[in-house]
Amino acid sequence: MSWKTFKEAKIAAYCKAKEKGEVDPDIVALVESINENPDLVSLSSCSGRINLLRFDIDERKSTAEFFAKWHGLVEKEEFEMRLYSYTEKMQLWFKVEPFILHVAAKDLESASGFLEKIRKSGVKRGGIQAISKEKVLMEVQGNDYIAVPTDSVEEWGPLLDIANRMMERNLDLLGKLEKLEW
Amino acid sequence: MSWKTFKEAKIAAYCKAKEKGEVDPDIVALVESINENPDLVSLSSCSGRINLLRFDIDERKSTAEFFAKWHGLVEKEEFEMRLYSYTEKMQLWFKVEPFILHVAAKDLESASGFLEKIRKSGVKRGGIQAISKEKVLMEVQGNDYIAVPTDSVEEWGPLLDIANRMMERNLDLLGKLEKLEW
Repeated sequence: MSWKTFKEAKIAAYCKAKEKGEVDPDIVALVESINENPDLVSLSSCSGRINLLRFDIDERKSTAEFFAKWHGLVEKEEFEMRLYSYTEKMQLWFKVEPFILHVAAKDLESASGFLEKIRKSGVKRGGIQAISKEKVLMEVQGNDYIAVPTDSVEEWGPLLDIANRMMERNLDLLGKLEKLEW
Repeated sequence: MSWKTFKEAKIAAYCKAKEKGEVDPDIVALVESINENPDLVSLSSCSGRINLLRFDIDERKSTAEFFAKWHGLVEKEEFEMRLYSYTEKMQLWFKVEPFILHVAAKDLESASGFLEKIRKSGVKRGGIQAISKEKVLMEVQGNDYIAVPTDSVEEWGPLLDIANRMMERNLDLLGKLEKLEW
């Protein structure tokens, strides 16, 4: 498959997902700014979120799944109502995850250019994950995160304040990235 | 600089660091197994650790620094003694971080081969971070982590049990990786 055909298929899939409301609104501007570069195309994205996740460290693969997620700020009352409604045995984790973005590039030169801009903007995590003749696959992710079993936390107010502050900083970073020329 | 000269210099630096006790013992076997491949060389590594870290989300760059770290399992009594000796104003975070490894490859082919083996072994995070004529730079990191401000945690016993279990699983993964032929 040529790069042009590949990109057109990915753009069509993105438009469909966006129509269905499956693309996080806070990352739309960045994704569309990246897609303006003829040599880049977005594959999947998440703008960042606050999660409650079923997770047993010794049964990782079979069990990690969402109990609740928020893509924006979370209010203590709403959060605690959801948390205290959890009655399963499996350990529940509280996680704050920054944005994550998968992007394909036409060649190594355009991939390197993309990663260079990403690093200069202060994003530390990410790189090229696979290289084939037709394309280069990359993953990049924001910086700040929280991960802790919910039963280790006594009082949620201060931790939710920090979680919300992280989400705001994550949005600031997305805002900075979407203003760049990709 | 030719690849051969570059690799020789990095191996010399590694041997010096190892002599000084600056290489984590639990990652030595993996690093030396990787270095047996003439087209790969390790640049830096950490076998994974449990940290207490000064960290203010709004002053990230200027303030993130270690207050304490353990490269192996941690005992509750020793941990709490260290934690309760902290009297500074800056928020203190508890973090469990899996192994991290920086490796250079001679070319894209050897880099891709390395990353493929890494993925097949169950390591999800990592990729190529920079490409130049002479070499390809990669970063790979283990899977499980914890990150939470210490003042959100009421009781340390259960959380330290999970932290130690993560460290054990991290060592299992390193053990699996060091047995591969790189």
